[in-house]
Amino acid sequence: MTLGETKISEYLQELASASSTPGGGSAAALTAAQGTALLAMVCRLTIGKKKFADVEDEVRSILATLDNDLKITQELADSDIRMFQTVMAAYKLPKETETEAEARAGEIQSALKTCSDVPFELFKTCLFMLPLADRLEQICNPAVRSDVVVGRYLLLAALYSAQANVEINLAGITDDSFSAEKREFMEVSIREMKLHPL
Amino acid sequence: MTLGETKISEYLQELASASSTPGGGSAAALTAAQGTALLAMVCRLTIGKKKFADVEDEVRSILATLDNDLKITQELADSDIRMFQTVMAAYKLPKETETEAEARAGEIQSALKTCSDVPFELFKTCLFMLPLADRLEQICNPAVRSDVVVGRYLLLAALYSAQANVEINLAGITDDSFSAEKREFMEVSIREMKLHPL
Repeated sequence: MTLGETKISEYLQELASASSTPGGGSAAALTAAQGTALLAMVCRLTIGKKKFADVEDEVRSILATLDNDLKITQELADSDIRMFQTVMAAYKLPKETETEAEARAGEIQSALKTCSDVPFELFKTCLFMLPLADRLEQICNPAVRSDVVVGRYLLLAALYSAQANVEINLAGITDDSFSAEKREFMEVSIREMKLHPL
Repeated sequence: MTLGETKISEYLQELASASSTPGGGSAAALTAAQGTALLAMVCRLTIGKKKFADVEDEVRSILATLDNDLKITQELADSDIRMFQTVMAAYKLPKETETEAEARAGEIQSALKTCSDVPFELFKTCLFMLPLADRLEQICNPAVRSDVVVGRYLLLAALYSAQANVEINLAGITDDSFSAEKREFMEVSIREMKLHPL
């Protein structure tokens, strides 16, 4: 069953339980999904109103991006669980013989890299949405401007959460150039976008 | 139907729709609920392990608070919808005669005050949980420390979102001393807790 098909109270109970999935990766992705959905609502409450006719085309184009990102962030919440299970499975491979131990180590490294891609995608998705939130705040129906503010907070928290989740995977990865590249992208992006530290 | 009984994908679709509820208030409360649940998970993965026996009593006590806050934040997500509808209903009251107009204005003010209490409660709930997150980060099972970091980000975003949601209600409230008191509490709290601006 996907998280989308899960009832909110059951999801929260699972999140709070001692089971390691769903965990911080899915929570970050669903927080981004909520932020994205709020921004999309603001677009819908701006489009079709005479008062905002001069920005309608721009808001429609932002909405198309957001509707796509809403799907992506929901999918990332499920991917996070799947990828985490792949890592767990790799750790459980036999390591009796030298050949087995080597194969296991290779599987772990490969699984950790794939696993780190999920929060890295989430980081990028949030990063590219933040300027849309800034723009929406300027041009949207002022009656729902506070929903843009909330949406932006949620995207920002999701971005920093995604960074922490990438880092926890990188901690186990031995390919230093792989890790350095991811780290640099995230750090430079945060600096370039002049984001507040959390 | 409560939000807890709603499937995640349906909730997100409703949030993204042109319908004004659920909106930023519920999204903030459910983000806080996710942060709370993550911290509770970290407690459960710390309790009962020999290695962390010396902090077990403290972690159990933190968990009891979190389990209670998880209920509160979920309830606030529903209250936000209900209270918003009360405000909308007040605005729809007749205002043909002077008596009606006066009664309507009174109802709107009363509804706005009650409505502002929901995000204000959320603000306080997040505020009191942040020190628990800080403490957990020091004493928890290090294998799940990144989940504390994510939980803390979500609570922080929920706190600032709650502040924005209180403000949007205060904007319509004519009782200046009511508004000043709420505003001062939030501003002083943020300063005292040395929270980063978002």
